Amino acid sequence: MSGSSFGTLFKISTWGESHGKALGVVIDGCPAGIPLCEVDFSEDMKRRAPGQTKYATPRKEADEVEILSGVFEGKTTGTPISLMIKNTSQRSGDYSEVASYYRPGHADYGFDAKFGFRDYRGGGRSSGRETAARVAAGVVAAKLLSELGIKTTAYVKQIGPYACEKNVYSRQVSKEGSSVTTKIEKYIPERDIIEKSPLRMPDPDASQKAEKYLMDCIQENNSSGGLIECVITGVPAGVGDPVFDKLDALLGQAVFSIGAVKGVEIGAGFSVVETKGLDNNDSFLSQSETSSNMDNKNAPDANTAVPDPIKETNNSGGILGGISDGDDIIIRAAFKPTPSISAEQQTVNKDGNPITISVKGRHDPIIVARAVVVVEAMANIVLADRLLVGMSAKLDRIKDFYGK
Amino acid sequence: MSGSSFGTLFKISTWGESHGKALGVVIDGCPAGIPLCEVDFSEDMKRRAPGQTKYATPRKEADEVEILSGVFEGKTTGTPISLMIKNTSQRSGDYSEVASYYRPGHADYGFDAKFGFRDYRGGGRSSGRETAARVAAGVVAAKLLSELGIKTTAYVKQIGPYACEKNVYSRQVSKEGSSVTTKIEKYIPERDIIEKSPLRMPDPDASQKAEKYLMDCIQENNSSGGLIECVITGVPAGVGDPVFDKLDALLGQAVFSIGAVKGVEIGAGFSVVETKGLDNNDSFLSQSETSSNMDNKNAPDANTAVPDPIKETNNSGGILGGISDGDDIIIRAAFKPTPSISAEQQTVNKDGNPITISVKGRHDPIIVARAVVVVEAMANIVLADRLLVGMSAKLDRIKDFYGK
Amino acid sequence: MSGSSFGTLFKISTWGESHGKALGVVIDGCPAGIPLCEVDFSEDMKRRAPGQTKYATPRKEADEVEILSGVFEGKTTGTPISLMIKNTSQRSGDYSEVASYYRPGHADYGFDAKFGFRDYRGGGRSSGRETAARVAAGVVAAKLLSELGIKTTAYVKQIGPYACEKNVYSRQVSKEGSSVTTKIEKYIPERDIIEKSPLRMPDPDASQKAEKYLMDCIQENNSSGGLIECVITGVPAGVGDPVFDKLDALLGQAVFSIGAVKGVEIGAGFSVVETKGLDNNDSFLSQSETSSNMDNKNAPDANTAVPDPIKETNNSGGILGGISDGDDIIIRAAFKPTPSISAEQQTVNKDGNPITISVKGRHDPIIVARAVVVVEAMANIVLADRLLVGMSAKLDRIKDFYGK
Amino acid sequence: MSGSSFGTLFKISTWGESHGKALGVVIDGCPAGIPLCEVDFSEDMKRRAPGQTKYATPRKEADEVEILSGVFEGKTTGTPISLMIKNTSQRSGDYSEVASYYRPGHADYGFDAKFGFRDYRGGGRSSGRETAARVAAGVVAAKLLSELGIKTTAYVKQIGPYACEKNVYSRQVSKEGSSVTTKIEKYIPERDIIEKSPLRMPDPDASQKAEKYLMDCIQENNSSGGLIECVITGVPAGVGDPVFDKLDALLGQAVFSIGAVKGVEIGAGFSVVETKGLDNNDSFLSQSETSSNMDNKNAPDANTAVPDPIKETNNSGGILGGISDGDDIIIRAAFKPTPSISAEQQTVNKDGNPITISVKGRHDPIIVARAVVVVEAMANIVLADRLLVGMSAKLDRIKDFYGK
Repeated sequence: MSGSSFGTLFKISTWGESHGKALGVVIDGCPAGIPLCEVDFSEDMKRRAPGQTKYATPRKEADEVEILSGVFEGKTTGTPISLMIKNTSQRSGDYSEVASYYRPGHADYGFDAKFGFRDYRGGGRSSGRETAARVAAGVVAAKLLSELGIKTTAYVKQIGPYACEKNVYSRQVSKEGSSVTTKIEKYIPERDIIEKSPLRMPDPDASQKAEKYLMDCIQENNSSGGLIECVITGVPAGVGDPVFDKLDALLGQAVFSIGAVKGVEIGAGFSVVETKGLDNNDSFLSQSETSSNMDNKNAPDANTAVPDPIKETNNSGGILGGISDGDDIIIRAAFKPTPSISAEQQTVNKDGNPITISVKGRHDPIIVARAVVVVEAMANIVLADRLLVGMSAKLDRIKDFYGK
Repeated sequence: MSGSSFGTLFKISTWGESHGKALGVVIDGCPAGIPLCEVDFSEDMKRRAPGQTKYATPRKEADEVEILSGVFEGKTTGTPISLMIKNTSQRSGDYSEVASYYRPGHADYGFDAKFGFRDYRGGGRSSGRETAARVAAGVVAAKLLSELGIKTTAYVKQIGPYACEKNVYSRQVSKEGSSVTTKIEKYIPERDIIEKSPLRMPDPDASQKAEKYLMDCIQENNSSGGLIECVITGVPAGVGDPVFDKLDALLGQAVFSIGAVKGVEIGAGFSVVETKGLDNNDSFLSQSETSSNMDNKNAPDANTAVPDPIKETNNSGGILGGISDGDDIIIRAAFKPTPSISAEQQTVNKDGNPITISVKGRHDPIIVARAVVVVEAMANIVLADRLLVGMSAKLDRIKDFYGK
Repeated sequence: MSGSSFGTLFKISTWGESHGKALGVVIDGCPAGIPLCEVDFSEDMKRRAPGQTKYATPRKEADEVEILSGVFEGKTTGTPISLMIKNTSQRSGDYSEVASYYRPGHADYGFDAKFGFRDYRGGGRSSGRETAARVAAGVVAAKLLSELGIKTTAYVKQIGPYACEKNVYSRQVSKEGSSVTTKIEKYIPERDIIEKSPLRMPDPDASQKAEKYLMDCIQENNSSGGLIECVITGVPAGVGDPVFDKLDALLGQAVFSIGAVKGVEIGAGFSVVETKGLDNNDSFLSQSETSSNMDNKNAPDANTAVPDPIKETNNSGGILGGISDGDDIIIRAAFKPTPSISAEQQTVNKDGNPITISVKGRHDPIIVARAVVVVEAMANIVLADRLLVGMSAKLDRIKDFYGK
Repeated sequence: MSGSSFGTLFKISTWGESHGKALGVVIDGCPAGIPLCEVDFSEDMKRRAPGQTKYATPRKEADEVEILSGVFEGKTTGTPISLMIKNTSQRSGDYSEVASYYRPGHADYGFDAKFGFRDYRGGGRSSGRETAARVAAGVVAAKLLSELGIKTTAYVKQIGPYACEKNVYSRQVSKEGSSVTTKIEKYIPERDIIEKSPLRMPDPDASQKAEKYLMDCIQENNSSGGLIECVITGVPAGVGDPVFDKLDALLGQAVFSIGAVKGVEIGAGFSVVETKGLDNNDSFLSQSETSSNMDNKNAPDANTAVPDPIKETNNSGGILGGISDGDDIIIRAAFKPTPSISAEQQTVNKDGNPITISVKGRHDPIIVARAVVVVEAMANIVLADRLLVGMSAKLDRIKDFYGK
């Protein structure tokens, strides 16, 4: 069924269960020459790791990434990079009861129906712990992207009813009189601002309200859903492919493949339902018309003859017809409340008989704070892959490449 | 760049431009023995075809599907099925001006950045006309699915501010007293109800209001966004794969790959952000507990030992952890307003200079009515593929298959 | 089963049966900007076409290639190129009897076992006619390769016991005295020499003997096997991948996928079994040491620091460890005798009962003469794909590409 | 460049360098329910391991396979199986000199040209040690195949000029008088006979002569090529796909992807060049006509209507038109002499200057004895994949599967 591989040229294959010996990923197709060492993984692994705040499971995992292959003398060699993260805090005993019934909101029933049985320890392969391998792969993708001037930033936009106020992705536009000069501003929160909030919400007020809301959830033995927003800057125009491998389609698959995601938006997202074409279309502006804090002069490459316009708005979310338009890429993902809650729930056991359960174990009351780095990782993996694939789109560039 | 193929075992490769000789699709991996003839394509092709109502482009296309290979004596042979749809109403002259500038909301700029030039006639490869080949492939997928008792129904849920009232996807649940009996009802509109509305909105009142709204858009030389909902019944539990090839992830890619889609939801979708776990989790109920009009007793297959529970609610949208849970699959997709509008817009030309344009040609003021069948097609293609892939998940079933 | 697609970035999907309406191929991933028109296909299609000599089936097919998509204003656009070849000389009546039994040496039995039935007309999908689509795709690949200075030449090396004498692939080496200067010569037959022989054997004496041998075969209602040799010049060093996608492994798959091929060799091939390492290893020589008629100064690209040595011998056939070494690539393929012969043969019918048959229809007494261009096509398709894939191997080249 | 993955449904991704921390493989798509434990790997890993005889490198490696994921309570779970083999005998010091020049017969030059640098320790990724991961994956494939009655046996057929006499793959046929009864015998050496020879040649006389020949090679600081033959029994008819994914084409890729292979044959192989159709075609015989020691009554499955004939000969090598014909599958592979020899050789260094080298380190004078199990592994991986893929070929079987 081959469902654990992703990508065409920058291809990842993840493996591992929540309570097995280890988890990991093989990256096949990472270009040679990228500096990489084990310390590079620490920050992102820690952002995803459990036990960091009271809003996350207290399970403690070192989540140290070991490089087993593909790096020599501090650089990637172009051959498969095998990364392993050992599981150190398995408590399988917590889960033995789970084997006999189907937890609501979990994949238990589908797994039994598909495979005939399942590794029930901590969700096995469908545990959120599976994302550790994605984050490790995402670090490698990010190293490649940073060499190309591309940066990805995700944060929590909303938890329950509490949303960050500043509309970070949209830009303020003001035409000054009859002058064609246009002023464009955008706001993308810096990593340190985001990390100041235990919930990774860059708006301190919203963060505090959400914290209180979550404390209530915890007391109710309940959990909450949330919304993540992700902005990618520096992507040149021309990345992505016209039909099934549209950049947004692959980002859609990538983000939907994160457990608990129930909705994905690009740019203006669902709000387009109620808008009209004239408002939703983003006018292209000549660079000479604008004064902005936008630095992404993203003409696709040095020797391309296309101009380098700026869009007046960014309802497209940086992607038109599946191809990047040189603007910031904006993704939003809705995460459902953690299904593992200790409140009582109705379900059936393996014999089909009704029972009442209370899910034990060490669970997160909210997923989004830890999932921010997972969304970044998946976005980076898609971008890395499409940037490599895109090198072969034009004959003249291929001839340049091969010195003809 | 290989972006025009999709699927693992039921694999489609589409081709063709809006104003070229023809469009088409090659289906590689369709099982042998499915009855198929050219008439089978008529209804769905007509549902997508232009010129059917005043809310669609008046371009007239016969959109007849010709079977060029893979069918013998009225049945599929298991070898590639090549389907071709000739273009009969090209008016390339309408588009010659487009070559020199970048239409807002279109892929023009990205195409030039990526490929160096583009077939500018009617959007070329990025034209909505490309979906004709998807619909043709979807018909073949649907024929396979219908043999397995699976049916897909899509309709327009909302246009501008006007939404169908009946919450078709959610079910009414009422526990009767202390009895464990639960009454579950669901409402999925029948095809003939949907087709009665020129906008394919099964709610006559909403449809009429939306029609009026669209007439205003047309008069303003403007266009409107809309929302499509799609329900798939009869999918057995256990379809889809745990990690990157989650059923929802592949549906996400498939639906996002339709031009103009800016958001996709499964089940409760974005509403999960504001809900709590206890409310969002769908309790499993024993069949003996329920009296319902639900006929989808979807235990995955005859010789599987898993029980066949019904979920009290369907916030999951029929998919948990990427694997079908035996319930109806619910997808929603937000389509942006048609970017081709004849109202004046600002943009830049190929030299980077600002110009004012008005897009000429024959365009749709709304896409969703014609896109309903495209969403169905993409969903069916994903389902067909995953049902075939899923046959190899368990040793005992493989041994049965090979008579061991 | 998806067995009709091939390639990663330059991906082809073929379709069509021998006696259906048409055959064709969709090329997804061909770079934009390659000049292409329908006349470009004529020469290669004619080389493959039936009815050209008395050593080929007298079936007459125009084999004209129609370009349905992917080309605009005389250049490839980067979107899928759909090519169609109409069948004009179907005589299905010739084959109706074949439906009831299994021809020895044919795929009939396997097809029935796999698919339950088959399009028995002229072998259906397993007809040699299927290769027409490969040749069409090969023409496009060759156009790309020619822009990069790569040329592929195949010819018939042997038919029955009659082999071309000149050992075209091996090179004469003579060290002159104590001088380190080495003289290297090679002989690759020109297309016009090859085409002078109706059997495409560049050795006139061998060709004449083989012709007489084949006339005897025809009189005996029998057929003959043959050997094709293929030389590719101008491939830069560094093409191909280290493990499963070794250049020779993909060439192996590509050539074995041509019906009737029972053996494939690279370079010294099966003769390596009886040689020793010191003889089989090809010494690298400094360019300054050599005077040769070798023009393939194939350092992989302009800005690579590796030297550009010449090998003293070419037992490697241009590939070491799956990666091109800058030398000529040498492939040999053994084709079995045409299985369709009108001599009497024993077989069984669909009921399992023994019968005696004589295969009617219009068949070739020898395949290799027409297959020469098919081997070239498959080699070119592999090369085109791997050259595109190889562009993403190194960080510094990627940074150059994206102007960083 | 993604060259380290192989397979469609039973997909393997290998990783690891000769002198890195470890090597391994991730198997994605192995069906659930196959009994598997670490001991299962011992025998095959030992057959491949170095240091077993004086005809192999004395490097000592335990080559113990560790199962990191995908197995629970002794059975495969259907999720990725991660297997790791730690390197325990790295002596990188032996290789430091190699960094500065290009060893003849090795991938050194191609690696530098492709990636810009290489892990030069022991050949890095292009070391024969890479095959350890293939053998581990092959064990899992073999476990699946054994459940389906399929068995793969490879052995050394020839070393230098010394070949096993008994023509194991061809069968003796004798028609008795005018009776239609046909006697068919075949000889496939048993594993214990093969293992009695240190060179894995099942003919004791040939083995002894080859041993003496190899002792001479060792004394000359030289090495020898060899030939492996592989027989697969029990494969049902109908496995493999008609065009590019022909069973022989995929076996061709799989076997050519083993380093040092320069030629691959199926069935009669290169001998077909000199034979005629009437001799090469294998007549189908009714089972009632034959008395044989052939037990492979391989009608594809219980509910298929095709008969179950036996072929009088097996020149096809069990594959016709890319699809298995129910007969034994026969593959032969030519391995070049080990390129690492301590005899003096000419080459160039990284500056392009000529130098004389003598390859140090611990090398095998012959590869085939250790490669026997690698050929088996690759054949098993292809078969496992195609058997899973083949389950979706026919509608009636799919309906059976899903209980419709």
